[in-house]
Amino acid sequence: MIIVLKPGLTKKDETDVLREIKKLGYRPHVMRGVERTVIGAIGDERTHQSLETLASWPQVEQVMPVQKRYKLVSREAHKMTSTITVDGKVIGGRKIQVMAGPCSVEDEKQLLATAHAVRKAGATFLRGGAYKPRTSPYEFQGLGLKGLKLLAKARRQTGLSVITELLSEAHADQVAEYADIIQIGARNCQNFQLLIAAAKTGRPVLLKRGLSMKIEEWLLAGEYVLSNDNPNLMFCERGIRTFETYTRNTLDLSAVPIIKQESHCPIIIDPSQGVGRADLVTAM
Amino acid sequence: MIIVLKPGLTKKDETDVLREIKKLGYRPHVMRGVERTVIGAIGDERTHQSLETLASWPQVEQVMPVQKRYKLVSREAHKMTSTITVDGKVIGGRKIQVMAGPCSVEDEKQLLATAHAVRKAGATFLRGGAYKPRTSPYEFQGLGLKGLKLLAKARRQTGLSVITELLSEAHADQVAEYADIIQIGARNCQNFQLLIAAAKTGRPVLLKRGLSMKIEEWLLAGEYVLSNDNPNLMFCERGIRTFETYTRNTLDLSAVPIIKQESHCPIIIDPSQGVGRADLVTAM
Amino acid sequence: MIIVLKPGLTKKDETDVLREIKKLGYRPHVMRGVERTVIGAIGDERTHQSLETLASWPQVEQVMPVQKRYKLVSREAHKMTSTITVDGKVIGGRKIQVMAGPCSVEDEKQLLATAHAVRKAGATFLRGGAYKPRTSPYEFQGLGLKGLKLLAKARRQTGLSVITELLSEAHADQVAEYADIIQIGARNCQNFQLLIAAAKTGRPVLLKRGLSMKIEEWLLAGEYVLSNDNPNLMFCERGIRTFETYTRNTLDLSAVPIIKQESHCPIIIDPSQGVGRADLVTAM
Amino acid sequence: MIIVLKPGLTKKDETDVLREIKKLGYRPHVMRGVERTVIGAIGDERTHQSLETLASWPQVEQVMPVQKRYKLVSREAHKMTSTITVDGKVIGGRKIQVMAGPCSVEDEKQLLATAHAVRKAGATFLRGGAYKPRTSPYEFQGLGLKGLKLLAKARRQTGLSVITELLSEAHADQVAEYADIIQIGARNCQNFQLLIAAAKTGRPVLLKRGLSMKIEEWLLAGEYVLSNDNPNLMFCERGIRTFETYTRNTLDLSAVPIIKQESHCPIIIDPSQGVGRADLVTAM
Repeated sequence: MIIVLKPGLTKKDETDVLREIKKLGYRPHVMRGVERTVIGAIGDERTHQSLETLASWPQVEQVMPVQKRYKLVSREAHKMTSTITVDGKVIGGRKIQVMAGPCSVEDEKQLLATAHAVRKAGATFLRGGAYKPRTSPYEFQGLGLKGLKLLAKARRQTGLSVITELLSEAHADQVAEYADIIQIGARNCQNFQLLIAAAKTGRPVLLKRGLSMKIEEWLLAGEYVLSNDNPNLMFCERGIRTFETYTRNTLDLSAVPIIKQESHCPIIIDPSQGVGRADLVTAM
Repeated sequence: MIIVLKPGLTKKDETDVLREIKKLGYRPHVMRGVERTVIGAIGDERTHQSLETLASWPQVEQVMPVQKRYKLVSREAHKMTSTITVDGKVIGGRKIQVMAGPCSVEDEKQLLATAHAVRKAGATFLRGGAYKPRTSPYEFQGLGLKGLKLLAKARRQTGLSVITELLSEAHADQVAEYADIIQIGARNCQNFQLLIAAAKTGRPVLLKRGLSMKIEEWLLAGEYVLSNDNPNLMFCERGIRTFETYTRNTLDLSAVPIIKQESHCPIIIDPSQGVGRADLVTAM
Repeated sequence: MIIVLKPGLTKKDETDVLREIKKLGYRPHVMRGVERTVIGAIGDERTHQSLETLASWPQVEQVMPVQKRYKLVSREAHKMTSTITVDGKVIGGRKIQVMAGPCSVEDEKQLLATAHAVRKAGATFLRGGAYKPRTSPYEFQGLGLKGLKLLAKARRQTGLSVITELLSEAHADQVAEYADIIQIGARNCQNFQLLIAAAKTGRPVLLKRGLSMKIEEWLLAGEYVLSNDNPNLMFCERGIRTFETYTRNTLDLSAVPIIKQESHCPIIIDPSQGVGRADLVTAM
Repeated sequence: MIIVLKPGLTKKDETDVLREIKKLGYRPHVMRGVERTVIGAIGDERTHQSLETLASWPQVEQVMPVQKRYKLVSREAHKMTSTITVDGKVIGGRKIQVMAGPCSVEDEKQLLATAHAVRKAGATFLRGGAYKPRTSPYEFQGLGLKGLKLLAKARRQTGLSVITELLSEAHADQVAEYADIIQIGARNCQNFQLLIAAAKTGRPVLLKRGLSMKIEEWLLAGEYVLSNDNPNLMFCERGIRTFETYTRNTLDLSAVPIIKQESHCPIIIDPSQGVGRADLVTAM
């Protein structure tokens, strides 16, 4: 951690900061520049108490982290690229897996027709929501257990593996029973209790990026899965919220090389949510 | 709902759209403009199936909602300003209620000292986290039940009412037992199952705005509380995420007149989260 | 234009709005819905006075444009895809043109070495700044005319065509003398006097997207070039400003299919500005 | 400047970085942490060549500036709060100056009526556009010189001082002849040639914040005015662009305490542009 002091401090002001840094278990290293004094605090920021509280001290101009806060998802800790195998299909390998299906499972006819169609078009996973998080309480909230059973039926008929969303800790076991991959949606990406519950089912977890989630926050949310003994995590970029209104979201394709650089976990792209317009999905 | 058609459609293209509008239960009303044909679909968008699916039709340029999607939180439905009374303190009335306290409950000494200090400074509610949602799994996650008990002790000593965050459906009863107001944090603002669980405890609910939550989405999230038979909802603006990095968040003070105009529910401002810098809190 | 009225208006309130719509030259068309009355105002929004002023009337809830405000850049007006030919190189055709070079022209040695290197790597255009817009007045502002002459020298030696930025109306003739394509930078994307000055030189114009420019604003800025008798406009996506701090900008690749759909003008991608990190450019 | 090295470098990799830092005129100071090596580069970042180029070196993880890049606008350099006196009216003092008027000057009758009305309501400055930057070339671009003359007439009749926008270097002398304060609009906030031209007229300059301008960029744009020998600069917050669509912009009121803390120059608030809705202006 780097601590930048305000200019014009007294000797005592500075000593107080140094004492606090030592108290929190770090070794301070002072550098005097032209206008600012800078302190490097040496120690592992993940095993000691955070130095961020120093940011509110009147002596301190800013506190800048140097170390990365994520560990298990990081490529530094795990040089090899991880893959996840579901029913013999390898996610994160050379072959691209296509996950497709309806937004929500509406009825048997719709689901089976869609499942057969996407399989024919090359999809290997069937994606459909049985539990749906809806902006408005007046919208259709999904078929629940009945929807999960229809997904299982579609799997039997088509051989597609099933990915579906979990949105309540209370449904974790039920969803895990029917799903081959558990999806955590954008709105629940920092619902950490849900992430832990999903991790504990043992099923692979697909973690969507939140609408205004920084890459670092996303990696740290993923850390909740890996640190709860579930190594099978994949990230999913699905568009971020920006000022642009032509599209529903702005698909941030730079997330692909970034996640590959920072993490060993696979990354999935959701172009249909990502732009929110059917006419742009193919191009994206 | 207003449906704008693309230019240059055939008669049949147009008829297909009109038929679909009728099928979904609306009465179409066609207006022919200079370059575009526009259809007004007349009917209650909350009781009929949504027309938004039309947006993906090749004939349709855009679908624009006219009606507001929120109902119970709306001032149209409830002209009088609502107030919420907790231990005789009126929230949403002429007197401003001050809610203050530590970010998280750390130990008895810290909490009691803070509680006495904020009470002396004029606060009427003690705010402190017993369960903490943390970006990183390696940060302190709160004292849990022990923290709730300390909050209750501080209430007995100071007369301050207690507001604390609920972050798991599984804790709803426990938190409701100790809290006078249940806080739903920014990260869980669209965790609808949690909103329902909070509503069902019967305690007043303070709903923080999400980091990138539009006003309409916020009002609709509030609708989940009121439509689950809990009339005691208050909104809390706590800063939104923007491109600016000088502050942690951008406190959107326009939320105050907007919520007062659109809703009858009280609005609270959290200036410390809102800017994320101690030196700016007083000014904000 | 669609005008949504507030609920509960008197007959007179409504009549006043209708009278104003007629006064501004439009034909009003009233639709009564379940909760709202909606007026369609029929007439060309580009040749009549704008109805947007109605948005500030107390009777009016919102004013929603239906018609697209851009005309000459629009694909509706010009179905064929436009190409721009510079020294026999076709921009916007099947072959991709690569524009490369240093951020700023620093000296002869640097520029010539770079020019030869990028040509060898496949570039067909040399891009380099002689006039540089700098966030700080203390940074290097470019070599000016001397830089333009060096670019011309590099062109003679390599056969690469030259694209360079114009940032002042006062330099328009000078820059046009040396440049094959005039670049308008992100910071000047709505400096309309500069756009007009660039258009009037007769050189092809490359218009970068502003940091927080909506697609519609970008197309309208391009309209300033075409409506000043210069048909040779190309758009350039160079990343937008979002909350993400891992990259300098978020490259919005959805701009490619969108511009192709909305406009007949070519679109260029600037991946290096777009992410602002050398290690991600190749992937993007 | 702080340079964070990537983990796992060879001795030679590190030496190369140290050599470059020295070559650019800084004194390097090495700190070895638990996982990362950090180098403090000591020297004035404004008088030496920038170290930011190091960010693209493969050895370097990040480059973090410590020093503030603005100087003349900074409160560090000028502890006393600056005021600007126009016709005996003090801007930046205890008394608040109200600047009001029409968006654009349309005709004599409209302008004089508005001028008298705003004066009666307490305004001390008349604000109106003679040259208007318009998103679309088909919108009214202002009366130009004729508008400036009308503003002068309104000043004679009412005693209000005049503030009006400059949007082309070519108009600098003309606008300065009629205006008491020159306004630089949001779209031209980083049109540095225009800032220099405005500064050189000697008139006080009001610099609006750009739609997606960070505080630091705004201060640096102001630095262009002060470093061109014009001490009479005032900043104007007018709302930033965010994801929210309920308002036209998000008025960032935290800009007031921030500018007061960072700079000695006055700060003005434009609540009507800031929210873009007449019904919210009074509250803001």
